[in-house]
Amino acid sequence: MKKTISELIKSYQEKMQFARAFQYALWMIGWDTETEAPRGALEERSLHVGTLSRELHNFTTSPETIDLIQELFDRRDELDSRLQIEIKKTHKSLMRQLKVPVDEYVEYQMLLAKTQNIWAQAKNNNDYNAFKPYLEKIISFERKLISYWETDKLKGYDVLLDLYEEGMTAKEYDEFFAALKKDLVPFVKEITSLPKREFPFLRLSYDIDKQKAFSHYIMDVMMFDRNRGLMKESEHPFTSGVTSQDVRWTNHFHEKLITSSIFSAIHELGHATYEQQCNPELDKTNLGGGASMAMHESQSRFYENIIGRSPAFWNVHFAKLRELFPSQLKDVTAEEWVKAVNLVENSLIRTEADELTYPLHIMVRYDMERAIMKQELSADELPGEWNRLMKSYLNIDVPSDKEGVLQDVHWSGGMFGYFPTYALGSAYAAQIYHAMKQDFDVDASLSAGNTQAINEWLKQKIHWHGATKTAKELIMEATNEPFNPKYYIDYLKTKYQAIYR
Amino acid sequence: MKKTISELIKSYQEKMQFARAFQYALWMIGWDTETEAPRGALEERSLHVGTLSRELHNFTTSPETIDLIQELFDRRDELDSRLQIEIKKTHKSLMRQLKVPVDEYVEYQMLLAKTQNIWAQAKNNNDYNAFKPYLEKIISFERKLISYWETDKLKGYDVLLDLYEEGMTAKEYDEFFAALKKDLVPFVKEITSLPKREFPFLRLSYDIDKQKAFSHYIMDVMMFDRNRGLMKESEHPFTSGVTSQDVRWTNHFHEKLITSSIFSAIHELGHATYEQQCNPELDKTNLGGGASMAMHESQSRFYENIIGRSPAFWNVHFAKLRELFPSQLKDVTAEEWVKAVNLVENSLIRTEADELTYPLHIMVRYDMERAIMKQELSADELPGEWNRLMKSYLNIDVPSDKEGVLQDVHWSGGMFGYFPTYALGSAYAAQIYHAMKQDFDVDASLSAGNTQAINEWLKQKIHWHGATKTAKELIMEATNEPFNPKYYIDYLKTKYQAIYR
Repeated sequence: MKKTISELIKSYQEKMQFARAFQYALWMIGWDTETEAPRGALEERSLHVGTLSRELHNFTTSPETIDLIQELFDRRDELDSRLQIEIKKTHKSLMRQLKVPVDEYVEYQMLLAKTQNIWAQAKNNNDYNAFKPYLEKIISFERKLISYWETDKLKGYDVLLDLYEEGMTAKEYDEFFAALKKDLVPFVKEITSLPKREFPFLRLSYDIDKQKAFSHYIMDVMMFDRNRGLMKESEHPFTSGVTSQDVRWTNHFHEKLITSSIFSAIHELGHATYEQQCNPELDKTNLGGGASMAMHESQSRFYENIIGRSPAFWNVHFAKLRELFPSQLKDVTAEEWVKAVNLVENSLIRTEADELTYPLHIMVRYDMERAIMKQELSADELPGEWNRLMKSYLNIDVPSDKEGVLQDVHWSGGMFGYFPTYALGSAYAAQIYHAMKQDFDVDASLSAGNTQAINEWLKQKIHWHGATKTAKELIMEATNEPFNPKYYIDYLKTKYQAIYR
Repeated sequence: MKKTISELIKSYQEKMQFARAFQYALWMIGWDTETEAPRGALEERSLHVGTLSRELHNFTTSPETIDLIQELFDRRDELDSRLQIEIKKTHKSLMRQLKVPVDEYVEYQMLLAKTQNIWAQAKNNNDYNAFKPYLEKIISFERKLISYWETDKLKGYDVLLDLYEEGMTAKEYDEFFAALKKDLVPFVKEITSLPKREFPFLRLSYDIDKQKAFSHYIMDVMMFDRNRGLMKESEHPFTSGVTSQDVRWTNHFHEKLITSSIFSAIHELGHATYEQQCNPELDKTNLGGGASMAMHESQSRFYENIIGRSPAFWNVHFAKLRELFPSQLKDVTAEEWVKAVNLVENSLIRTEADELTYPLHIMVRYDMERAIMKQELSADELPGEWNRLMKSYLNIDVPSDKEGVLQDVHWSGGMFGYFPTYALGSAYAAQIYHAMKQDFDVDASLSAGNTQAINEWLKQKIHWHGATKTAKELIMEATNEPFNPKYYIDYLKTKYQAIYR
């Protein structure tokens, strides 16, 4: 007998609760691994993570689960609009999973489990050749994935781009990066040809406990809800929210690098605010958290760069920083501090790049990925091409592969198509900022000492909706027009013209 | 076709790996709950804990698992000696689980999930009657469990005692407690009738960060391996080792109670040393960790009381404590400190009781549990009986149920039969100490500033064996005679006669 739609929904929800329990356990173990697990714990947990992941995979791809999702998908017109979105998303990801032969999937996962370590060693030894054969295998697996997932609409590299930012194709990214290139490459040249500015106070020692105290201060400024989250330490800062009720982020602290913990805090708290301000009804669906990779990054970069490096922010908060570090900052003004944290330089390492040159680093990677997937660039040619593009966009000579083609972890994890979302996120942020300023005086609201008005605006327009709307829809609704890179270019030029006037 | 024994072993080990992955996930979530999970996380995790536990229970009691374990049990003569022990233990616990009808089991678990909270509120409000009806239900469930688990050898309360300390019956506990009662009750009276000693420095304020620093110092003294474990904070200190490679313990810190964090550290590190010194080959079996409840407690109490409150220990380490707290301890000598941390008083609360009166607190609970299970004592009569026994053993009037019958969490969690292991553990510790002193000069070895010689002796005689031997076997082998309470009584009398001479 045919099941009623409410019977189907009930079993779907039971199945999802089952899967969520496994995801929760894996999340918990992962969080512990990244933050505090003793080294002795690591070997055993890889076994357990394997067992739990396999169990989850078996469950997700069981005939019973597949039939249920297919039937709900076929009868999606009978569902309310939110459940329709959820089922479409579940169905899409299941279909994608089923197109990959299980043996190949497992083989690829086992390869990836090794390659991150091999990459880390190769980077450490500045030895690209040690990584190259593995990178070649990864690229050939990625090409296979493309062949499984190609559709009438999506071909080649577009398949991978769509994984990380639904609806963004190489054509659209090409236009975006062409616009940036046209305006920003000469603009960066102009600024970097000015006499070099020096801020020796940035290189002083800053007590780590006081840096931590400032991270806690920033948490209050950004109104992070400590009942629904916490901060810890890890080597690389990250944010990991399992639901809106449990949002965890990390920071790292280096005595000689005060700006790192400050801007990592603001960045991660941007991600965390997005998670905490999501509609809690979505916690029990696959629509919680962010709308897309780029949209998530737009929020962290909005808070970090647009708010967190603005004069309005530091006019209020610099006093607190100087109170904690009276000797290091005694001769520094808020104005000088803002100049220091917005210093523009052509530099080698993406993760340490300033706001203005950052998208040029992304363009290097995007150009290369596109060529790799078109089979126009082989693994042998990558270091040379990297160095050529760095010279072309950033006018910088790369002294070693360690500081060049080997610097990022992504390719060793099979993440082709991810990088461009970083630049796109920054551009979303600028367009969102433009719209926000039409609604209220953002700088004036910061003078209250917190980000309440900003948080509230973003909650209504972006955060609350989770993934019930796509990034494109959110941009349209929040800014009343489609995505347009001109806001990003205008924002960067206006800001840095003022700083370098 | 009949399976070969090695095929059976292989599927047993696969099944155990599966179960261990679930146990690991539940352990991880539990550790997080106890130490740092934000309050917002708690509601969702109860759902996930439920799902994972049910899945584990279904797996453990599936016909396939039952058949496999039964077949291995029937053919146990074909197994090597360690696997024989493991299978006997697995079989025993499975048979026990199968004797309880699933519905009753679930009903009882759901009751227990509520009663701990009800107990906490009743204790808080000093309202025994609010807890009484639930306690009655718990007692009647426990009696039902007895009826399911009774054997020719084990009847009544003995069934519960055997759960926590295999092979210990009420007859043996009766003899043990009778011996203690005969000697210790008058001895305590003698000491507590002496003029009361005062140590005002114990009631001063001690900076919490420095208390933490001293806990870290103690970790080094006790040679805790930080690569295979860590310390955090929780309301009540506890130790939780999932394998010998990942042993975690907690402490709590109160500004006005310096002794609490010091002796909790030594106590928990005693448990942790037991876990860390277990043969790592047992990590993948159900024979890791300790031999029994009382044996585990014997190790924590050995380090806490016998070592950690000894003059030899503080002759070396008091200097460090005084270095951290120069103003509070400037007029205090190591000798005075040892007297202070060995102060004997008749007091109301077990967890705060001194080493000498501690077993009398246990006797109160043991006498009552035995009478309850014999149906000689009803829930109505518990507060009165409690107060009567406190007067009889400890010569103290109980002013409120909060400080009396409601003080401990155990009964609200259905843990009848557990309390006596606390006293038994202390007695094991004394007998072990006696044997250890025959082998080397324990006090002299402490003067090296660490517990290396002691750890090594305990590792060889007790820790390494995990649960491959019973507590009775370990006592026999480590001390060359069966358990005998006289060592405990002698130890206590000798020690406190010296302190109160």
